[in-house]
Amino acid sequence: MLEQVLELARSSRARAESDLFELISIPSVSALPEHREDCRRAADWLVARFRAMGMEARLSGSGSGHPVVEAEWLGRPGAPTLTIYGHYDVQPPDPLEEWVTPPFEPNVRDGCVYGRGADDNKGQHMASVVAAQRWFERGGPPINLRFLIEGEEEVSGRTLPDLVRAESRRLATDYLLIADGGFVAPGLPALLTGLRGLLYTEIEVVGPHVDLHSGVFGGVAPNPFHGLVHVLAGLKDREGRVRIPGFYDDVRPPDPEELEAWRRLPVGDDQLRAAVGAELVGEPGFSSTERRWARPTLDVHGIVGGFVGQGAKTVIPARARAKVSMRLVPDQDPARVLAGLRSAVASLVTPGTRAEVVELSAAPPVRLNVDHAGAAALRRAFERAFGSPPVPVREGGSIPVTIDFQQALDTRLLVTGFGLPDDGLHSPNEHMNLEQFHRAVETVIRFMHELAVA
Amino acid sequence: MLEQVLELARSSRARAESDLFELISIPSVSALPEHREDCRRAADWLVARFRAMGMEARLSGSGSGHPVVEAEWLGRPGAPTLTIYGHYDVQPPDPLEEWVTPPFEPNVRDGCVYGRGADDNKGQHMASVVAAQRWFERGGPPINLRFLIEGEEEVSGRTLPDLVRAESRRLATDYLLIADGGFVAPGLPALLTGLRGLLYTEIEVVGPHVDLHSGVFGGVAPNPFHGLVHVLAGLKDREGRVRIPGFYDDVRPPDPEELEAWRRLPVGDDQLRAAVGAELVGEPGFSSTERRWARPTLDVHGIVGGFVGQGAKTVIPARARAKVSMRLVPDQDPARVLAGLRSAVASLVTPGTRAEVVELSAAPPVRLNVDHAGAAALRRAFERAFGSPPVPVREGGSIPVTIDFQQALDTRLLVTGFGLPDDGLHSPNEHMNLEQFHRAVETVIRFMHELAVA
Repeated sequence: MLEQVLELARSSRARAESDLFELISIPSVSALPEHREDCRRAADWLVARFRAMGMEARLSGSGSGHPVVEAEWLGRPGAPTLTIYGHYDVQPPDPLEEWVTPPFEPNVRDGCVYGRGADDNKGQHMASVVAAQRWFERGGPPINLRFLIEGEEEVSGRTLPDLVRAESRRLATDYLLIADGGFVAPGLPALLTGLRGLLYTEIEVVGPHVDLHSGVFGGVAPNPFHGLVHVLAGLKDREGRVRIPGFYDDVRPPDPEELEAWRRLPVGDDQLRAAVGAELVGEPGFSSTERRWARPTLDVHGIVGGFVGQGAKTVIPARARAKVSMRLVPDQDPARVLAGLRSAVASLVTPGTRAEVVELSAAPPVRLNVDHAGAAALRRAFERAFGSPPVPVREGGSIPVTIDFQQALDTRLLVTGFGLPDDGLHSPNEHMNLEQFHRAVETVIRFMHELAVA
Repeated sequence: MLEQVLELARSSRARAESDLFELISIPSVSALPEHREDCRRAADWLVARFRAMGMEARLSGSGSGHPVVEAEWLGRPGAPTLTIYGHYDVQPPDPLEEWVTPPFEPNVRDGCVYGRGADDNKGQHMASVVAAQRWFERGGPPINLRFLIEGEEEVSGRTLPDLVRAESRRLATDYLLIADGGFVAPGLPALLTGLRGLLYTEIEVVGPHVDLHSGVFGGVAPNPFHGLVHVLAGLKDREGRVRIPGFYDDVRPPDPEELEAWRRLPVGDDQLRAAVGAELVGEPGFSSTERRWARPTLDVHGIVGGFVGQGAKTVIPARARAKVSMRLVPDQDPARVLAGLRSAVASLVTPGTRAEVVELSAAPPVRLNVDHAGAAALRRAFERAFGSPPVPVREGGSIPVTIDFQQALDTRLLVTGFGLPDDGLHSPNEHMNLEQFHRAVETVIRFMHELAVA
């Protein structure tokens, strides 16, 4: 049966492309109110596609947000259930003048389709939609199948997370595939083993009860900036070690296989240095890859207070406030880190000032177990479709929905991607390589098969 | 002759007050274009007063600024020449609703006249104008006399400084009296021995070539805020010592008489603490008074860059910039301090970042010699009029015109004041105690006499 499905996929490439182009041509920009109806059109288009192939499909979520497309087929009792995540909303296309062809008129050049969302995320989830469709056209998939395709990924909406948490029992699934990342390099797929979490805070230091003149009071008044810079310099040393007591206590070192894979990555410090445009720095004793993926860190994003206009004003302000975030790694606990931060700040603040730490948001780090039958199935599928198994990588940022899935569904997440590093996500002339797209379809077809026979 | 002049002053107090009230009633707010003609009216009013008493008077300066009132009488060849400074412009009166009576309708309550400029500076320079007038009404002053009364003090205009520098030969003078400060406490006049200078800079730290996402690059990208807080924390230690190498080398310690006088000041740390509204801090080993008047310091006034809006944004910005000023004391040289700052910043900046120091303005500290016959004359005058000689104090901020006078005229400056600490300068319900005003008239009458007999 697998060979027939693959054969059908090969012979119907034109039809798959035409479907993809149709979806890309709907300007489903979730951030812009004037595209509200377009978002709904994209959702309806997907519902129609799922129904046409024989799945039960509907829109979920209500109120002011964009709906989630839910599709389900549970025709293989006893077989595993796979849920596939995607998002039909796209980034705004600005700056429009930099697009070679209009962002919502898909255009094929040099084997790639150009258009907003071609990779992120329409190309990626359409690979799975087409894969499912080919299975249905040859008697149905060998496993149970569910799609959850949201419309608020680019605006951090809560419709899907709320749905998942409210209906965790109904949405129970053995595996959950998220294809919203990309390949490490052409020919080299990736499978995530972890994502860093994020603890975002504001540290406010208070000095005088009102703004003061530095001529009259300079030398005796406790300047809150003075307190703040000593706090911030004390939180991370010159070389990049975070100096919050206990900060590194719960950090789980990467697996030996991860470290070995990272050493062999074809992407090195030269490329990273070019992207940063400055010398690479960081915690001594770790590679750049470890620093970005497997080590926690602390960054200041902005400092509010005093005088920031043109020219000179000699104010000693009453208060100053820094936006400070920490990237966390497994098994750090945001609450424990916050407590450590509070105690470090209290001990670092300078005489005459006092400090307060306010938590703005906290997302725990995510550890993705890839030591199970589903991951093995995906590895085999990638190896056959692309000639290489995925390498274990991590993500330095967080993908919030992974936390909701992990906490609410207690399932095995497979976080991967079908795009290439230069696809131009969030940029003008975003595109998807069509050969890559068809091999992604083949990968998902094979993955469903491998899950069934595992 | 002195006794006759003093007697006349005593018997014509009502006339002196009426003249003062007339000047206060002219709303000469230099900062507000709609009061441009009022400023001119105040200047014209003074010119008429000087001419009426027999002085040559005119308006100087042209273009977009407010004119300087110049008045001169050189009828005592061989006697010393005294120049008296003042400013006829006043602060805007806002907030209007907090005034008990309208700011430009002088009103007498409890022995004080209320109105904008009653102290700053109309009451103060009118004491000298009335003193001169009484001398002219009794045969003329015993010394040569000049007035320079500007109209741009509250807006830092350049008309008077430019005039002084351009015509330094014509404006040569033995002594220059500036009464734009105030008493230390009721009954206790002050004579300035120094003013701190100001070096105002921006320190910019550059990291990545573009703004980066801290999820992807946090841990390897050099965050310019990290460089900046280490620079700033390195420039001044937790206790308040400035750590720029050589920073204190040229600091001249206060004279023993100054230190002794400061120890006896009736204004202590309790009052200062109440004004600051926080614990007093500063360089160890020095009193609050020394820290404010005789020690240099460094303050951060604002930090520009990154994200300062509501909420959380995880940017590692390409650059960040701090506004940093240093208060300087005799005999520090702003150029030498700037060179030391540049070298300190270069050595403090963290790996992967680079820093640049831009000078926004530099005013040298001013040392006022009070060991000469003119100062002795003023001391005797104060002692007889108020029962106490002035105490040697300093000013923590700078009075820019003192630098121009000192550099261009090479004269002996006497910087003092006739107001009281609670007169409400720059605030609603500004006022001048009328007994204080009449004793100020007596002080200046006596000062002119003492200068002649010295």
